[in-house]
Amino acid sequence: MKEVKVVGNLIGNTAYKMNIDGHDIITDVSVENGGNDLGPRPKALMLASLIGCTGLDVKMILDKMKEKVDDIQIEVTATATETDPKVYTSFHVIYKFKGDDLDIEKLKRAVKLSQEKYCGVSDMLKMIGPVTYEIVI
Amino acid sequence: MKEVKVVGNLIGNTAYKMNIDGHDIITDVSVENGGNDLGPRPKALMLASLIGCTGLDVKMILDKMKEKVDDIQIEVTATATETDPKVYTSFHVIYKFKGDDLDIEKLKRAVKLSQEKYCGVSDMLKMIGPVTYEIVI
Repeated sequence: MKEVKVVGNLIGNTAYKMNIDGHDIITDVSVENGGNDLGPRPKALMLASLIGCTGLDVKMILDKMKEKVDDIQIEVTATATETDPKVYTSFHVIYKFKGDDLDIEKLKRAVKLSQEKYCGVSDMLKMIGPVTYEIVI
Repeated sequence: MKEVKVVGNLIGNTAYKMNIDGHDIITDVSVENGGNDLGPRPKALMLASLIGCTGLDVKMILDKMKEKVDDIQIEVTATATETDPKVYTSFHVIYKFKGDDLDIEKLKRAVKLSQEKYCGVSDMLKMIGPVTYEIVI
């Protein structure tokens, strides 16, 4: 086991500024809801976390397989409850690949390896709700 | 139920750029691990999500209670496994408040309301591992 620490400081009204790996991340509330919109709403960072995590896995695995892709776009849609505490209840990931002569079997294998073996964020989100996925080329 | 969507695009080698609520978020891998360090490692965004979520709750509740604080710092420490898929197994939140004549009972009440009633991120992380907290003034 190792420990990971993140520290956030209140800046302005409802915004918090954190520094992770040397990069600033700010979260805030919308102006309509009493914030100053200095950054995104915090909860959606969980979805960004999933995209970044599975996305880097897939790219690194495809690189190892010598499978060249011109572009990868990853879309995550979560369903969310509308009463407090508002939580996500399911997650669907769409992987969109662009490139010439893409090998669909390699793409499937890379995505499956990330979803089932490597991506810790996906593994954690599965404890919250089902994580489904599809591949589009 | 409502749907929330986040889209990420591969930029560079292993980095993904997302736009959430009009704000860009980039995740990447360190240079040593094959990335370009264009943004933080993605998994830690889950901890940033928790800080931003509980932090805005606490600040808004204290504002409603007319409890003035000069500063709030929130520190989250997660324990993480070291084999794939690497996941967090527990979370500890330290709320540090600064101000004159702070009413500890109000601070406790605000934190408890966030942790037990309002913060959806905390509610989700509890499905992954225990979320404990303490208050420091």
